[in-house]
Amino acid sequence: MNNLSINNLVYSFGNGKADGQADMVNLLGGKGANLAEMTKLGLPVPSGFTITTEVCTHFYNNNKFPNHLDEEVKKAISRMESDMGMLFGDEENPLLVSVRSGARKSMPGMMETVLNLGLTTKTIPGLIHKTKNERFVYDAYRRLIMMYSDVVMEKSDGIDPKEEKGIRQQLEDILSIYKAKKRYQSDLDMKGNDWKYISTEFKNYIEKKLNKHFPDDPYEQLWGGIQAVFQSWSGARATHYRRIENIPNNWGTAVNVQAMVFGNTGEASATGVAFTRNPATGENKFYGEWLQNAQGEDVVAGVRTPHPLNEATRTKESKHLKSLESFMPKAYTQLNDIRTSLETHYSEMQDIEFTIENNFLWMLQTRTGKRTGVAAIQMAVDMVTDGMITKEEAISRINPEQIDDLLHPTLNKEEEKKAEVIARGLPAGPGGGIGQIVFTADEAEKQAMAGKKVILVREETSPEDVHGMHESEGILTAKGGMTSHAALVARGWGKCCIVGCSALNIDLSKKEITIDDKKLYEGDWISMNGSNGAVYKGKVALQTANPDSNKTYRQLMMWADKIRTLKIRTNADSPEDALQAIAFGAEGIGLCRTEHMFFDPQRVMIMRKMILAENDSSRRKFVMELLPYQRKDFVGILKAMDGKPATIRLLDPPLHEFLSLNSSQIKKLAAELNVITQKIKNRISELHEFNPMLGHRGCRLGIAYPEITEMQARAIFEATAELTVAGIEVFPEIMIPLVGTHTELKNQEALVRNIAEIVKKEQKTDFHYTVGTMIELPRACLTANEIAKNAEFFSFGTNDLTQTTYGFSRDDIGGFLPNYLNENILSHDPFQSLDQNGVGQLITMAVDKGRSVRKNLKIGICGEHGGDPASIDFCYRNGLDYVSCSPFRVPIARLAAAQAVIKKKRFDSNHN
Amino acid sequence: MNNLSINNLVYSFGNGKADGQADMVNLLGGKGANLAEMTKLGLPVPSGFTITTEVCTHFYNNNKFPNHLDEEVKKAISRMESDMGMLFGDEENPLLVSVRSGARKSMPGMMETVLNLGLTTKTIPGLIHKTKNERFVYDAYRRLIMMYSDVVMEKSDGIDPKEEKGIRQQLEDILSIYKAKKRYQSDLDMKGNDWKYISTEFKNYIEKKLNKHFPDDPYEQLWGGIQAVFQSWSGARATHYRRIENIPNNWGTAVNVQAMVFGNTGEASATGVAFTRNPATGENKFYGEWLQNAQGEDVVAGVRTPHPLNEATRTKESKHLKSLESFMPKAYTQLNDIRTSLETHYSEMQDIEFTIENNFLWMLQTRTGKRTGVAAIQMAVDMVTDGMITKEEAISRINPEQIDDLLHPTLNKEEEKKAEVIARGLPAGPGGGIGQIVFTADEAEKQAMAGKKVILVREETSPEDVHGMHESEGILTAKGGMTSHAALVARGWGKCCIVGCSALNIDLSKKEITIDDKKLYEGDWISMNGSNGAVYKGKVALQTANPDSNKTYRQLMMWADKIRTLKIRTNADSPEDALQAIAFGAEGIGLCRTEHMFFDPQRVMIMRKMILAENDSSRRKFVMELLPYQRKDFVGILKAMDGKPATIRLLDPPLHEFLSLNSSQIKKLAAELNVITQKIKNRISELHEFNPMLGHRGCRLGIAYPEITEMQARAIFEATAELTVAGIEVFPEIMIPLVGTHTELKNQEALVRNIAEIVKKEQKTDFHYTVGTMIELPRACLTANEIAKNAEFFSFGTNDLTQTTYGFSRDDIGGFLPNYLNENILSHDPFQSLDQNGVGQLITMAVDKGRSVRKNLKIGICGEHGGDPASIDFCYRNGLDYVSCSPFRVPIARLAAAQAVIKKKRFDSNHN
Repeated sequence: MNNLSINNLVYSFGNGKADGQADMVNLLGGKGANLAEMTKLGLPVPSGFTITTEVCTHFYNNNKFPNHLDEEVKKAISRMESDMGMLFGDEENPLLVSVRSGARKSMPGMMETVLNLGLTTKTIPGLIHKTKNERFVYDAYRRLIMMYSDVVMEKSDGIDPKEEKGIRQQLEDILSIYKAKKRYQSDLDMKGNDWKYISTEFKNYIEKKLNKHFPDDPYEQLWGGIQAVFQSWSGARATHYRRIENIPNNWGTAVNVQAMVFGNTGEASATGVAFTRNPATGENKFYGEWLQNAQGEDVVAGVRTPHPLNEATRTKESKHLKSLESFMPKAYTQLNDIRTSLETHYSEMQDIEFTIENNFLWMLQTRTGKRTGVAAIQMAVDMVTDGMITKEEAISRINPEQIDDLLHPTLNKEEEKKAEVIARGLPAGPGGGIGQIVFTADEAEKQAMAGKKVILVREETSPEDVHGMHESEGILTAKGGMTSHAALVARGWGKCCIVGCSALNIDLSKKEITIDDKKLYEGDWISMNGSNGAVYKGKVALQTANPDSNKTYRQLMMWADKIRTLKIRTNADSPEDALQAIAFGAEGIGLCRTEHMFFDPQRVMIMRKMILAENDSSRRKFVMELLPYQRKDFVGILKAMDGKPATIRLLDPPLHEFLSLNSSQIKKLAAELNVITQKIKNRISELHEFNPMLGHRGCRLGIAYPEITEMQARAIFEATAELTVAGIEVFPEIMIPLVGTHTELKNQEALVRNIAEIVKKEQKTDFHYTVGTMIELPRACLTANEIAKNAEFFSFGTNDLTQTTYGFSRDDIGGFLPNYLNENILSHDPFQSLDQNGVGQLITMAVDKGRSVRKNLKIGICGEHGGDPASIDFCYRNGLDYVSCSPFRVPIARLAAAQAVIKKKRFDSNHN
Repeated sequence: MNNLSINNLVYSFGNGKADGQADMVNLLGGKGANLAEMTKLGLPVPSGFTITTEVCTHFYNNNKFPNHLDEEVKKAISRMESDMGMLFGDEENPLLVSVRSGARKSMPGMMETVLNLGLTTKTIPGLIHKTKNERFVYDAYRRLIMMYSDVVMEKSDGIDPKEEKGIRQQLEDILSIYKAKKRYQSDLDMKGNDWKYISTEFKNYIEKKLNKHFPDDPYEQLWGGIQAVFQSWSGARATHYRRIENIPNNWGTAVNVQAMVFGNTGEASATGVAFTRNPATGENKFYGEWLQNAQGEDVVAGVRTPHPLNEATRTKESKHLKSLESFMPKAYTQLNDIRTSLETHYSEMQDIEFTIENNFLWMLQTRTGKRTGVAAIQMAVDMVTDGMITKEEAISRINPEQIDDLLHPTLNKEEEKKAEVIARGLPAGPGGGIGQIVFTADEAEKQAMAGKKVILVREETSPEDVHGMHESEGILTAKGGMTSHAALVARGWGKCCIVGCSALNIDLSKKEITIDDKKLYEGDWISMNGSNGAVYKGKVALQTANPDSNKTYRQLMMWADKIRTLKIRTNADSPEDALQAIAFGAEGIGLCRTEHMFFDPQRVMIMRKMILAENDSSRRKFVMELLPYQRKDFVGILKAMDGKPATIRLLDPPLHEFLSLNSSQIKKLAAELNVITQKIKNRISELHEFNPMLGHRGCRLGIAYPEITEMQARAIFEATAELTVAGIEVFPEIMIPLVGTHTELKNQEALVRNIAEIVKKEQKTDFHYTVGTMIELPRACLTANEIAKNAEFFSFGTNDLTQTTYGFSRDDIGGFLPNYLNENILSHDPFQSLDQNGVGQLITMAVDKGRSVRKNLKIGICGEHGGDPASIDFCYRNGLDYVSCSPFRVPIARLAAAQAVIKKKRFDSNHN
């Protein structure tokens, strides 16, 4: 980076020629690369040049610009001058320029822009003379002053002012006072003289306020602008945005310097933005907005209502507004031709910006347009049908997360914009939810039974809350992270959920929530957007979802299924969940947690008796009381799978989870068991653990209490036998949790196989089953060659594996994770997307070691990462057989698995 | 194992010839190998043969003996018959044989023995005729019946009877009743007829009781005996012993069948055991005990008081008893010659058994003798002086754990034998402790101030108890494992401590302990043996320790220091601990924990204010109040080190450890801070974590609150500057804890280095320091190549690394570890001795990856394993630079480090 050679810092474009091209996005940023490409395509692009992203990186690494940058910029300006027939800083025919950011990946509005650079006391008279429009020139000048003072002069240290009102707002205030004094309604009333006066006022104010002179030299203005744009890369907004979008800090931004063209020189001028197809629906219609006699920022700012681009996309709301098609038919036809050539060239929907200056159409930008999930699928499938792209390309283009839009009811976007955000948390369960606040699971259940819609608000949830959570429209917790209990359960159901909403102060006794100085009470309506974490006051309308009604979605998924090789399974604990997942395309159960089955009131009582048993034989007696319930559970689930495999995990949580009782519950239990309450309290205190996540759970339970393993194995095998006899194919896979040593697995495997033999004899039938283990501890990965000797399959429990590899408790990570993300200590939450560098090494190791002793070892993943596209890609590259995720992630996983195949194929073909 | 070829199942010895020899211990067991060796040396050994350990393993793997064993045994019996001039089962000149176990490593009394096999109704008359001693023959016969019915007939399923009285005891009862009826005082009164009668009684009783006929065929008896001995390998006692001694189950035992010789045929017969040197002191004198007219078991059983072997070892207690030297001078001289030849041959102190049958001396066993730590050192050094062994051999012979005997006061062994054991726990802190029971740290301190000796008894301890723990003679907890808080702190001080003593039910309100049906109250005296975990009622006398007064100890350690290459550092948090460790030979501090410094009342109050601070600036203000205290701490420690390096770890524990307050403390704090109590309660609840071990601690604190890191760095550097200016050499090494990503380290390293530069400027001095990190998370090992870029040293925190690699909370492991050890799921507690197979892989990886980017990376270990010999050996083999352990483990570590060098040298020379 220190050795940037001359001639590669700046890339010019203009007049049909360009140094760069579309595939140089990493170096020139998206905007710069596409300006070059459009220029080469012969489109009318104002001349300019791009300073590369490497200059930005150099700037941050060395605190200065590379040598020769100055020289190269001067050369590029000359080229612009010759292209445009104007001179930068010239008194008679001055060239004005804009300075804009342009990163590899679009970061809309996150960095700075300065327009109209080159306007000085020397060039203004010439420009007025040339345009014969004093008002236009001084309007442009005051815009320059406002932007420049804000972006370049005030923020010169790169830090956004936080507490004080910014300089720009102060200038706006001066302008408002002036207009009020003059009794002007709007800026349109301002004459040339007014703008001239205001410009001087502004400059005086700035000098007084910032103690700096407003620069009157065009090059000083230009360098100020360039530096400000580079600096805005590390501004708070941009940094925050990169964190959310997973954009690396070291990418840097390019800077684009381009000749100004104006849509606000009069009635024959206009400006607009357009999409080559409808970005909301994907409909193949040219779609956009424009304004007559305006600058680009006016369209975006929403001060004036923009007009529809053409007649075909006119709506009820815009039917009284003139379309560009009808008002400037020639320019529109030219634009529409450009639309066609851009789509043909890029084979992708484009988001374009244009300006018409005195009836001359200029193209200012083209880029791949953002779109909704529905639109993304529609366009991709349409383009395949039209022969524009291949099926593989169509599949690669969809961001799998966008499929989520099709699967969940969501808040109405328009209403959401208007609603009052009262708090923000982590988006733990997608979609929208509206309801009245309740504070307990019991109350949630009661109100829901009475036909009300409720949102359950808790500090955090526990397995005892599950019944109430299930009945709620949404779950909102003050604590916890993306893999907290609430998040896991809600995502499993596809239910709206926001966690870690730390602004909430819940007072359970008063049944009220305090957020700063606001209060909310039981029964108050709130709305939640579980896809972005926003909580709104009141009721926002909901939109329902039904993916199967979408033909193009079905088409796309069919293509994906043909390409992918990873099997997609689901995490499901009930027949209902399993059936939902199968409807979404699941090919088996990858994780059936049996502990959730024990929280039913009748069963939990038996569990408690078991835990309080005095000796082995009475414990065995109580455990066996659970057998008929468990058998019924497994009959239900295995039947629902109808021939698809189902991995059933034996009891995992520490026993104290079943004894989380208040004193009246303890009294009741004592009475039922005919023991003194102290005995129960003693047992609870005995079972208390300092770090339950690292405590007596998983196979450690089955080893201490073999009767639990035996009962569960018996329930599974009796269910298997019953269904086999009834002619239903079943493939149970018994999974031993939390194995760290091969001896643990060997112990539990022997118990399970022994019961299988007994049940086969008792039931006089044969059946197929396998025994394997969850790989969720570093030690299991390190000794996978030993463990695989007794395991027919591995399933990576990446939640626990991430916890132990990092030493992060997923329940407590909320205390420092936000800080870690802000400070760039972590690039993402490792519980959301697999830490491929750390945890991933252990997985690779375990796969290699496991298959070194058992070639056909079946390997899957059943942590939360099983539904994360980047993690699915990792699983594919590491030779896993399947991923398992919650039912509502199944379609996402199917698509991501296909993308992984395509990505690897492309990578391989690029490297061969 | 299934392919054992003929001729290698049985190894004969006798008449000066033997198939085996001393170095075949693995195959023949210790006893068998040494019987063969003694035979070859020409010593008078009764003929016999050894069935190999491979037969045992075969027996357990296949549930039957190998083919041909029968044939080989018959051949070997023939050889014995010809050697001894007697015939097995012969009616006139019958050979009697013994069957004894013999494992690789001595397991005294853990397995079975059967004597006098071959006595049947057919052989008895012949033997009576030959010996002319009916009493002797029937006495031998009843002994056979008692042993055989117990060992072979009753325990034929290999399981020890638990609840019922065993058959042997029932036979003893019959004998007692008979003697009482006859008014006999002792067995000596029993005549030949009496024993004959009793033998018949016994056989009848056995037939009725066990429903089995007592075998009257010599070969049936022999095979029964052989099988019983093999089966006793998996008996409860033997299994338990192997677990404690870390003997693998798959070693198996050999079985020795040997011609019987009798020390009880009359006045010219005798039997005895002896050590070639004094096993308690190491003194170079022949030392042993003998009995006239007795069988070996009589000497051991303690029914008759054994006599001293010779005049030189006569004591006050034994001065009235005849020595073998004076009573059978010829036999004694022969024995004394054998002593010399055995020591010359083995170059090691031997533990021998002999029998004199009618004035003929027979050698029945020789093996390396067990010894105390003091004796071990004395003998080893003496043998070097005498040119018998090399210094390296001397060093290898000492079990490093035995050095512990020299370092701590211990309970008087004689008194301890007589004391009443009231409970047993885990031996967490070595040595002995006696005192009166107290239940709180405050009370401990108060009573100790008043001059009382106290034992602090708690459920578990926390940092708030440290002051009381320090003042106690011993610490006893009901919960916790070998690395619980109590154990760590106690070991650090070399204080007696027993943890996880689950039999204790502590009622704090009543100030009483219930153990089963017994009660103990505050003020009751108890005594503890922290080296074996026993708790005694009342006062047992203490013996003090002073290793430096032991010249041979000093000599041995000097040799060790010359050989070892690993440096030995200590874990010390105070100047006192540091000085103690230096006295024991420490070469630096490997871990100085700074958090313990914050629990002083004045400081903890500042910490609390800091934690409750409203914003960054007020938090910084409170943090800086701690600076002078911390600086003083570091001046003290660095000064004590006087030029030796000191690794100082920055704050590690979660903040809530400082806010563990009861309600009156909360009120007091609220008053001092002038805030409402609710605010404090809220903060406590905010800081609560579900799994604090995986929570907001370590460098995660320093990242969230950089002012803490800055204050600590400043304190260290100001202390460094002050001492440097004063002319004292100091080498502080700043250690960032709990790093999982290189970005964490980079963040903290920058803060620390920045402060160093500031302090250098402020103090106008230069000094040396390094910054490194604790490697205690799997992810740190996996990404050590990234982390090493910013680390000048690594120190493995193997406690935490073991916790996360296994997913075991060391505070909660007590719930299942005992079970895991019993079931052989774990061969040892991984917190005591490093799990080389799992955790070790991560360490090896981290060393390789770390040094791949920084060749001269200094690497040490500072977990509890730093004082464990096996772990030290691992550290040496993996190229670590040093190990760090608690002060009282330093001498052990020095020796173990020398042993590691010798072991590797021997291994390398064997493999080149």
